[in-house]
Amino acid sequence: MPTFDQIVHAKAIQIGKLALRATTAAGSGHPTSALSLAHIVTQLMYRTMRWDPENPQHRGSDRLVLSEGHAVPIIYAACADIGVTFYPEGKPRLLTANDLMTLREISSPLDGHPNPRVGFPFFDAATGSLGQGLSVAAGLAAAAKVDHHGKSIFCIIGDAEAREGQIWEAMDFIAEHDLTSVVAIFNCNQHGQSDFVAPAQTTDTLAAKAEAFGWKALIVDGHDPTEVRNALKQRSEARVAEKPLAIIARTVKGWGAPSIQGPGHHAVSVSEQDLPKVLAELDATGMELGADAVQPSDLQRILRILPPLPVPHLHKAQRPASISEMAENQKLSEALETAKKLSPRRGFGLALSALGHSNPNVVGLDADMKNSTYSADFARHHQSHFFECRIAEQNMVSVAVGIAAGGKIPVASTFGKFLSRATNQIEMAILSGANIKLVGTHVGVTIGADGPSQMALTDVAFFRGMAHVTDHRGGPAITILTASDAVSAYVLTLEMVNWPSACYLRALRSDVPVLYQEHETFPFGKFKVLRKAMGTGKKLVIAACGYMVHSALKAAEELHGQNIEATVVDAYSLPMDTDELLQLAAAEGGAILTVEDCYTGGIGSEIAEAVARMAKNDRPRVESMAVRNLPKSGKTPEDVLAYCHLAVSDIVDKAKGLVG
Amino acid sequence: MPTFDQIVHAKAIQIGKLALRATTAAGSGHPTSALSLAHIVTQLMYRTMRWDPENPQHRGSDRLVLSEGHAVPIIYAACADIGVTFYPEGKPRLLTANDLMTLREISSPLDGHPNPRVGFPFFDAATGSLGQGLSVAAGLAAAAKVDHHGKSIFCIIGDAEAREGQIWEAMDFIAEHDLTSVVAIFNCNQHGQSDFVAPAQTTDTLAAKAEAFGWKALIVDGHDPTEVRNALKQRSEARVAEKPLAIIARTVKGWGAPSIQGPGHHAVSVSEQDLPKVLAELDATGMELGADAVQPSDLQRILRILPPLPVPHLHKAQRPASISEMAENQKLSEALETAKKLSPRRGFGLALSALGHSNPNVVGLDADMKNSTYSADFARHHQSHFFECRIAEQNMVSVAVGIAAGGKIPVASTFGKFLSRATNQIEMAILSGANIKLVGTHVGVTIGADGPSQMALTDVAFFRGMAHVTDHRGGPAITILTASDAVSAYVLTLEMVNWPSACYLRALRSDVPVLYQEHETFPFGKFKVLRKAMGTGKKLVIAACGYMVHSALKAAEELHGQNIEATVVDAYSLPMDTDELLQLAAAEGGAILTVEDCYTGGIGSEIAEAVARMAKNDRPRVESMAVRNLPKSGKTPEDVLAYCHLAVSDIVDKAKGLVG
Repeated sequence: MPTFDQIVHAKAIQIGKLALRATTAAGSGHPTSALSLAHIVTQLMYRTMRWDPENPQHRGSDRLVLSEGHAVPIIYAACADIGVTFYPEGKPRLLTANDLMTLREISSPLDGHPNPRVGFPFFDAATGSLGQGLSVAAGLAAAAKVDHHGKSIFCIIGDAEAREGQIWEAMDFIAEHDLTSVVAIFNCNQHGQSDFVAPAQTTDTLAAKAEAFGWKALIVDGHDPTEVRNALKQRSEARVAEKPLAIIARTVKGWGAPSIQGPGHHAVSVSEQDLPKVLAELDATGMELGADAVQPSDLQRILRILPPLPVPHLHKAQRPASISEMAENQKLSEALETAKKLSPRRGFGLALSALGHSNPNVVGLDADMKNSTYSADFARHHQSHFFECRIAEQNMVSVAVGIAAGGKIPVASTFGKFLSRATNQIEMAILSGANIKLVGTHVGVTIGADGPSQMALTDVAFFRGMAHVTDHRGGPAITILTASDAVSAYVLTLEMVNWPSACYLRALRSDVPVLYQEHETFPFGKFKVLRKAMGTGKKLVIAACGYMVHSALKAAEELHGQNIEATVVDAYSLPMDTDELLQLAAAEGGAILTVEDCYTGGIGSEIAEAVARMAKNDRPRVESMAVRNLPKSGKTPEDVLAYCHLAVSDIVDKAKGLVG
Repeated sequence: MPTFDQIVHAKAIQIGKLALRATTAAGSGHPTSALSLAHIVTQLMYRTMRWDPENPQHRGSDRLVLSEGHAVPIIYAACADIGVTFYPEGKPRLLTANDLMTLREISSPLDGHPNPRVGFPFFDAATGSLGQGLSVAAGLAAAAKVDHHGKSIFCIIGDAEAREGQIWEAMDFIAEHDLTSVVAIFNCNQHGQSDFVAPAQTTDTLAAKAEAFGWKALIVDGHDPTEVRNALKQRSEARVAEKPLAIIARTVKGWGAPSIQGPGHHAVSVSEQDLPKVLAELDATGMELGADAVQPSDLQRILRILPPLPVPHLHKAQRPASISEMAENQKLSEALETAKKLSPRRGFGLALSALGHSNPNVVGLDADMKNSTYSADFARHHQSHFFECRIAEQNMVSVAVGIAAGGKIPVASTFGKFLSRATNQIEMAILSGANIKLVGTHVGVTIGADGPSQMALTDVAFFRGMAHVTDHRGGPAITILTASDAVSAYVLTLEMVNWPSACYLRALRSDVPVLYQEHETFPFGKFKVLRKAMGTGKKLVIAACGYMVHSALKAAEELHGQNIEATVVDAYSLPMDTDELLQLAAAEGGAILTVEDCYTGGIGSEIAEAVARMAKNDRPRVESMAVRNLPKSGKTPEDVLAYCHLAVSDIVDKAKGLVG
């Protein structure tokens, strides 16, 4: 009767060989990284995890996040052996060993790195840009905690990958929020891509770091089935001690096949001619370990997948309060009635509070800025639905991805500037199709005194590229929303949360006049005409967003006095319905001036691209104003706008130059 | 005779009061954070550091990096007390107490956060976007190590700030490279912006973390002059132990003034009417500590600034080898002669090697990708000038900023995708005016099999916004360079290193035909015409970059067979001289098709903006092709290009639609 160890070795070798065949067929990939995980993946997917192979996205099941995405062939191999549902050409069927031979093909859901949106929903998020998986796991655990659900989240991290600071942001976050349903498994095969790992990423150092970060750390032999099993069992003890568990697994890159071990074998697939030799080496290793004696019946006896827990209860959302109802509570109705000044960030905060009372699926995140972003009221009154992420924006964004994958609607807020700490994480969120809501406050130069280190200036250009990408839902992969007043910020926040895809809301800091009635709607992709050119003078359209809408309105007043008539557009949404804007421009003088207080690449580019696409006749001329020098501190928004050549008088001059 | 402690208390209170007055005059700022550093800054700037107040940028002097930039008023106060050279309206003079009253004004070099380029060169880099300073300090130390110079680098980090993962990337980097000239001082005042710091950022936890990261950690009372002095003295012992020193300082936010201590006082300046009371509290604290007995002569006796060390020797650069000379060494001459295929990343690697032999000021950095970026040859042969940053891109970019501030030319390479880990750090580098050279390989979708997690897609849109910003040198704050073959990659790398401002070179992965002769020059801002429309058929201009130049040439061939004549432009540089391109387009058919394999926001936007600006008559029509769906893995570049509707046939169809 073969032992437990022999049985696990047999399965590990079986899926290891499948991973080798797949990467050889693909002509690329990471067979050696895959082999270093053969036993850990066997223990997790065949014994430890509660899940349903036929329904891999089952919301009650344990989750596995492969942070070192390049090792994915070993998971594909296990899925093919088990028979997991995937979606070739969008139609579901069970993965087979033959399907593995399509690894990395353009028509195959088996991408080079985990990529759920191309048809492999076993994964909750795209990984492969390293250092992000543990944060995604933390988000999945946070969503489960909100639901009081007992699922476990396993995350596999590479040792070289553990150099990424985001890993340590996630270690802090998980420990602080007692997310003990997360188990972090460090795969220490001692090889990075170009060299051995640094002393800072060896098993002993990683264990010492994990302990210093408040985790219980266990160092095990990652190829000893009993050690791996016993380590995973200890997560219950760790939970009692209210510490998350980190398993530091000593592994061998290219385990079982000596000819592909050691330096020089990272990301190298085995050639067709070498493959038989390497497979034979694995068989020989199996014989040494007595795995050859294992019968199918032994495998069935020991390797049984446990069913998932029941799915968490789904919560119904109610109609959120109107801004005046919220404002009443906040003693701000007067501000609205009298159109006193109120900041868009305040409008966002009010809307988030309204959602807290009406929509139990909304989960708030902030990066120690909640008293500036105005998420503080939500944080105070909905503590079970709020996770303070501290000053660690990369982790916050990837946590949001995990929360979205867990069926919730994460709203993550901080200064827009600081969201640019997490652009790579945002790109991966978009690849994942994650329905996340990002809120950047203090956008543009009008924050004034704090200076450029706090100003979001590159955000629109960065997000607009993705806003012109169509996602799996058929719409923009992300929608950029810029609020010009507190009412639009309020309404846009409510609409953003109901929108099916990712959004980025820009809510500026300054108190500005209220421009809209509270029941105004802001359809995504459209714009608002706030002032119509009148009379018979020369005409132009001024398209602006955020604070610059107010400057544009002032400029229009001055221009009116000089017999130039400006139609003022609040371009609150990107991508924009430019056809409609171009019709308006054709009717209103055939000249467009765009005004933004960020760097080049926003509505100016959006409109210029549309104009340049038009057939030659009656194309409006477009001048764009944006930030084209490096800003600095100034005591007032106007000081900094003047420094950046964006004062009302600059707009007036530019408009005159355009139509004159 | 007053004690040492009494004398330091007296000075700390004196500069603390100046910081208070300055922030009250500004009506904003961080007086309480400033007071928590009063003693540490006094010890550093008046006693420990070797520097020259009249020449704060002296290259032999010790450096102070204030990572928690918001605490800057205490440094300004010390500089005003000492009389440090700054540059109001660009002219040098010594800072006075009166100048402090201009804090945060638009015309003042005293920005809300350290901002050397507005006239305060005491600082080496702009800080204030948190978590970056320790990496900058590491870069300054790395530059000093290359120069065999003995300067010390002091870095002050906030406790809440220590949540940023980049801090721990820097801790690893400094320990691994034995940069023991860096002293990290954690200012533990226990208050973040919106709350007390987390348990993970308390003094004991930070000390345990620092030790786990290979540092010697000392916990001290940050307001006890003797403890602070003795802790700083221990850096020599730490160096003997080959460990960098981390001083974990217990401090009080709002030290000396009880009425502004505790929660709610972050980022709040004292009102004019409260100021006398708060100043009186500081005086009272001084009396309790016996600081009132201190005479000017005592101050002069104890607080003497030591002069800097001699400046490091400047190294002369020689003419670098030509690519064929390098290629000869690399047995690649044949590839060039026969125009065999060669990858642009390989051209970059050859150029970096040539620079290693010819320019001792070039310092190489890579993030464990050196065998893929081809910086490996430089790393092997110029070990004293190369710093392996491992998988930690944020730290790498900020280290490059420090190396540039140290007088070297950092060339930092990794996958373009992974540079988007560090966009915020790049923005801060641009604010700093840092002359850094960033190299992103594997750009665009043509990497194929590895899939979208490894593809740089947002990079051009992000960088282009800054490329349209004019920096203090009067040119583009950053120049984007895209190599379409190995020769252009080689030449652009050499030219990039001689260019005075920041550059971002995009060097794709695939082997592509060589398009240029080795002595071709590539002036920044220009473009190359690779094929001229001929004959009498319909005409258009196709502007492309990188891999898409090759697709455009193939498309032009096909179009020629269909009586459509295409002029093909290699748009290798952004910003671009669009006037010249528009003249070319006017002469060659009045239609432009742009082709890029990244997201929207690159040369398509650049050209569309120029066209839309033109007066109405004869404006060319512009169609832009870019990546507008989410890519996936495919075995060949062509597979993925077809998936993204960027195949040669797609270009042909688009061209026909444009001119037909």
